[in-house]
Amino acid sequence: MDEWIENLNVMFSPKSVAVVGASRREGSIGRAILKNLVDYQYQGIVYPVNPKTDSVYAIRSYPDLKAIPGPVELVMVVVPSHLVKTVIQESIEIGAKAAVIITAGFREVSEEGAAEEREIAQMAKAANLRLIGPNCMGIIHGHYPNLNATFAPRQPLPGKIGFISQSGALGVVVIDYATQLGLGFSKFVSLGNKADVNATDMIRLFADDDETDVILAYLESFSDPWNFSEVAAMTSRKKPIVIVKSGRTAAGAKAASSHTGAMATKETALEATLSKSGVVRVASVEELFDTAMAFSKLPLPGGNRVAVITNAGGPGTLTTDALVSNGMTLATLSDKTKDIIKEKIPEEASVENPIDLIASGGPEEYAHALNAVISDESVDSVIAIFVPPIMVNTAKIANVIQEAVNASNKPVLAVLMGRNDLISKYINTGEDQYTFPIYQFPESAVNALRAMTSYATWRSKPIDEPEYIISPEQAAKGRAVVEQAVAEARDTLTQEQARELFEAYGFIFPQGRVVESLDDVIMSLEEIGFPVVLKMASDSVFAHKSDEGGVLLDLRSNEEVIEAWKRIQKAYDRLKVPKNDRAILVQKFYHGGVEMALGLTLDRQFGPLIMIGSGGVLVEILDDVQFSTVPLSREEARKMIKRLKGYPLLLGYRGDNPVDIRQLEDAMLQLSQMAHENREILESDINPLLALEVGHDHVVLDVRLKLDIRQS
Amino acid sequence: MDEWIENLNVMFSPKSVAVVGASRREGSIGRAILKNLVDYQYQGIVYPVNPKTDSVYAIRSYPDLKAIPGPVELVMVVVPSHLVKTVIQESIEIGAKAAVIITAGFREVSEEGAAEEREIAQMAKAANLRLIGPNCMGIIHGHYPNLNATFAPRQPLPGKIGFISQSGALGVVVIDYATQLGLGFSKFVSLGNKADVNATDMIRLFADDDETDVILAYLESFSDPWNFSEVAAMTSRKKPIVIVKSGRTAAGAKAASSHTGAMATKETALEATLSKSGVVRVASVEELFDTAMAFSKLPLPGGNRVAVITNAGGPGTLTTDALVSNGMTLATLSDKTKDIIKEKIPEEASVENPIDLIASGGPEEYAHALNAVISDESVDSVIAIFVPPIMVNTAKIANVIQEAVNASNKPVLAVLMGRNDLISKYINTGEDQYTFPIYQFPESAVNALRAMTSYATWRSKPIDEPEYIISPEQAAKGRAVVEQAVAEARDTLTQEQARELFEAYGFIFPQGRVVESLDDVIMSLEEIGFPVVLKMASDSVFAHKSDEGGVLLDLRSNEEVIEAWKRIQKAYDRLKVPKNDRAILVQKFYHGGVEMALGLTLDRQFGPLIMIGSGGVLVEILDDVQFSTVPLSREEARKMIKRLKGYPLLLGYRGDNPVDIRQLEDAMLQLSQMAHENREILESDINPLLALEVGHDHVVLDVRLKLDIRQS
Repeated sequence: MDEWIENLNVMFSPKSVAVVGASRREGSIGRAILKNLVDYQYQGIVYPVNPKTDSVYAIRSYPDLKAIPGPVELVMVVVPSHLVKTVIQESIEIGAKAAVIITAGFREVSEEGAAEEREIAQMAKAANLRLIGPNCMGIIHGHYPNLNATFAPRQPLPGKIGFISQSGALGVVVIDYATQLGLGFSKFVSLGNKADVNATDMIRLFADDDETDVILAYLESFSDPWNFSEVAAMTSRKKPIVIVKSGRTAAGAKAASSHTGAMATKETALEATLSKSGVVRVASVEELFDTAMAFSKLPLPGGNRVAVITNAGGPGTLTTDALVSNGMTLATLSDKTKDIIKEKIPEEASVENPIDLIASGGPEEYAHALNAVISDESVDSVIAIFVPPIMVNTAKIANVIQEAVNASNKPVLAVLMGRNDLISKYINTGEDQYTFPIYQFPESAVNALRAMTSYATWRSKPIDEPEYIISPEQAAKGRAVVEQAVAEARDTLTQEQARELFEAYGFIFPQGRVVESLDDVIMSLEEIGFPVVLKMASDSVFAHKSDEGGVLLDLRSNEEVIEAWKRIQKAYDRLKVPKNDRAILVQKFYHGGVEMALGLTLDRQFGPLIMIGSGGVLVEILDDVQFSTVPLSREEARKMIKRLKGYPLLLGYRGDNPVDIRQLEDAMLQLSQMAHENREILESDINPLLALEVGHDHVVLDVRLKLDIRQS
Repeated sequence: MDEWIENLNVMFSPKSVAVVGASRREGSIGRAILKNLVDYQYQGIVYPVNPKTDSVYAIRSYPDLKAIPGPVELVMVVVPSHLVKTVIQESIEIGAKAAVIITAGFREVSEEGAAEEREIAQMAKAANLRLIGPNCMGIIHGHYPNLNATFAPRQPLPGKIGFISQSGALGVVVIDYATQLGLGFSKFVSLGNKADVNATDMIRLFADDDETDVILAYLESFSDPWNFSEVAAMTSRKKPIVIVKSGRTAAGAKAASSHTGAMATKETALEATLSKSGVVRVASVEELFDTAMAFSKLPLPGGNRVAVITNAGGPGTLTTDALVSNGMTLATLSDKTKDIIKEKIPEEASVENPIDLIASGGPEEYAHALNAVISDESVDSVIAIFVPPIMVNTAKIANVIQEAVNASNKPVLAVLMGRNDLISKYINTGEDQYTFPIYQFPESAVNALRAMTSYATWRSKPIDEPEYIISPEQAAKGRAVVEQAVAEARDTLTQEQARELFEAYGFIFPQGRVVESLDDVIMSLEEIGFPVVLKMASDSVFAHKSDEGGVLLDLRSNEEVIEAWKRIQKAYDRLKVPKNDRAILVQKFYHGGVEMALGLTLDRQFGPLIMIGSGGVLVEILDDVQFSTVPLSREEARKMIKRLKGYPLLLGYRGDNPVDIRQLEDAMLQLSQMAHENREILESDINPLLALEVGHDHVVLDVRLKLDIRQS
């Protein structure tokens, strides 16, 4: 692992670079890379490699890698695809540490291409040669030794952003856009097909990279989400990770996989993983940079209470709308703050948040109001809006904001609305004239502030540890059930087995008995007491028992039970269930409570996903479900429950008693632990689970479970 | 009315303008207006008015309006607020047609200011002097006679956009931003306090203005929404109206009303009004212009099927995500189209929509693919994305798109990602070098296309006429009930009166009887039959009858009914209801069906609003309601029903029979007609209304109604 990271570091800070396939031809990719290396003052040695010429871009070239007289640390590969394997082989032989394969034509075009790519990757891995690509645009290191090993037409500014792009073209766009905003990069990587190095590897590298303060990524797929989740969570504790993940919609995912050849990512699983790991997800490239600007310039806010200062009412209103729609609140200013502000503003101005200094508000009024709100303890962050009127000099306002920012540890975001050319004078300096971000529209500032606030909230909370509430002894009993089923190659469990497994993991089933004769039913009634429910318990009927007339509820007398027994027998007749497989479950019937649904599914990329949903009508009509990855912490379980639309039902609806929510959390933790310890579970449904009022145990009214028996 | 519009037209095309309060002082507002008039080549005569000087900006000035030797059509007022009334009085005396009051300090600062403003407005109205402001930035006419009567620091381009702004500062921003985008204005107005001319008036003016193709507005409040709705609907048939309405959130509305002094607008009512009138609402100023660019340059799309052409996968994926999330679909290209495209693109490229021409795709490939998709009948609009790679010239691609656009009647939107300076070369021409809009981000193009598509859809539908299904005879019966209550000064109706009113309007109540003794109950059972429900029917208990134990359901025998009777009597005891006011309703009880809630409220600005919601748990927990203004068309009623989250319940859930949706539409039309014809109704609830399966009438299980008896 050490050497692994070491060589990835060498990739970005090599002492020497060979460009294999560099050609003299104007506009060729190899020449473009060579030119970028030279023009942007790479501080090592460059070796063009090309058997057909003596020099490229006035630099002596060599016929092959082995002919190079000194050591080569990084190999840039721009040869035709059928020659790539040979070049990688040679790179290994000369002891190179890393290679970037620009060449396309592998996994993204055909099955053969994919096989070739796998072979190259294995070869490199065995020799511990780090590989980026194929099918990528290259890499950049913004600081010493100034490596621009891309064919991008532009050079980014040096800075503190680490950028990971799964699209070469978007990489170019990103460089352009960042340059417009005066934002610079520590390292930039176009990942291409990710045959070796992937986003998770780069995040791991950035985590300990002192040159990197903020990590940005444009991703279309995840190569190893399990690792991603862990690495991202660890890294987010140190610095923010902001990503745009495209392919959010089914059509988008299809478009993405058609040009990357990557598997589509399940959105629910991804969302759960990102929010657990503190990763900030934004919706567009524009928002990515609005957010990056804030993260790279500002301290984190202590909370979500925002003060808005403006010199015009309209933009103040727009900002307020945007803040509130994004879950932020307008800070309630203290009387002291308002009194201070009043001292220097005209009577028509407003001292209520948003503070409106009106058109006559100049630098002095701005400074006064800004300092007052920054000092107010009920303010976590400030948005300062300025619409240039004729009489006030924008630069003076910007300077005033800068002074206030210098004396403050709260984030201040500026919005200068109006002429782009005027504004970009302030933004696009490259020399960081101002240490606060400047936006053209209030909505952009609010997006950035929302991202910072949600990240700050995540980071201020203690690390969320998964909770395992079932003892190892109990878990072992459950495990035995699963192992036996696997040994018997049964992918489903019998009623009894399922109950044994779920009971081992702390689930509570209603009093009941599986019986086979009417006499047994009547006998069991003495033990259970009325009301009861009768349910089919045949191994031949798994699903839709209700629809088949196999579930009869709220039976209150022997007569009703006998009648129900007969009806189920008729249903069995209709379903042609063999006489020896006609068991019936007699169970206690419960009035009241709230029906919930719990579930598990195994996602091929993200592992087991746990689900909770409101039961009954709500879950089916409204799709009122929440997902997370396994294992869960109690905090996560609590959050998932709270996010349900049907949550108010749990708190006691229409005078009902509130249900025992802590017990519902327990049930989720139990199911999470069960999934975590029994990876053979393909899917499971606990539906309904009846959540009863505080002081009463929940009851599981039905479970289903399916195992992947091939796995073991 | 004719003179009214005539004078509003004179306001924008005056032969002469007096600027009252123009001062020589550098940076003063009066001088700025004068300077703008002169510098931007106003084609009439300008008269500064100022008793303290001989000339302003080298133009001879006059001591007062009466001293001016020629006629004055427009008076610009920049005097201190206490002199405004006198100036308006003089304007009337010299026969001016219009005045713009720039001066602030009226309704927005105090009650006295509001009174003064009303007085000025009445004076002007009586003399048919059109007034804009006070507290505004002025007006601009982009075409002959080139009137820039504002103190804005910049001059907009001339063009086809009519712009209405309720914020002066945002007006400046809007001019700046439009100029950046190469968009020009026909007329621009900063409304200020709207003492006389308001947004509706301006829309009416723009409707018949040949210089105006698109109407844009930034609004914070509505002065006369009833009129707005009608005028907007009429105008939208001719040209699009796109608005940003701030104060969407409660906090935003508060911020807006604190600086405009205007009443907050109810969002649900506004949304209903806008969508009925075909008005396109966008979320931000940025989006307003993205949308304006598309409307002012492109034909309307025939539907929502979009083809995407790109030279890079990432942006194609982002565009797809944005399209699908905005309710658009990716067009399914015909095989013929795909075959044509295949002819000219490399194998690695994708001919599935989004069509990816990959980085090597140059002008020829672009032209070929673009023409093919434009000719495809399954394509309604095209988004053409181009990320400038090193080898392809952006201008050539833009020219190719232009050629395709010239030969097409479908909208084509271009996205050129990357360097702003490069891109703005294409966008910011002012000479309309390209007749298609160019965006920097895919999301902006998609927002614009969504707006165009929704407008085109609205406009392609026949005008939605309200439907009145209750005969005048029936309606008269209902009206009589209301009139009697008003005559008796009762703001609520008795059970019988309410039933009479609702029955007159076609609502069906369950068989039932209001009785006062247990004997009467038992007698009524013979008529009604089991099961029944017993309900309090006392005039002393209006709400929460269920909570008080005043509603007992599903009673199946005489014994159960007697027991229920006793329990209600006990509840009456507890509530201390007088013995002579203890009526009880015996009603048929219905199993099955779907509970719905219908309602009316009277909005102070928008008139009666009609509501439909899912009943029971859904309506209360999930706030599953839809609003519209009155009167309704059947189409609107249908749409409202379909938009309910609980709509699937109506279609037959878990094997139930579907309910009679047409009858539910009828119920809404009946309620709409009732509200329309009985303006005294303050609020009413029909909850629950039990919608039963096709072939069975709905039943109204409970109604409440409140009248505004002061009104008549």
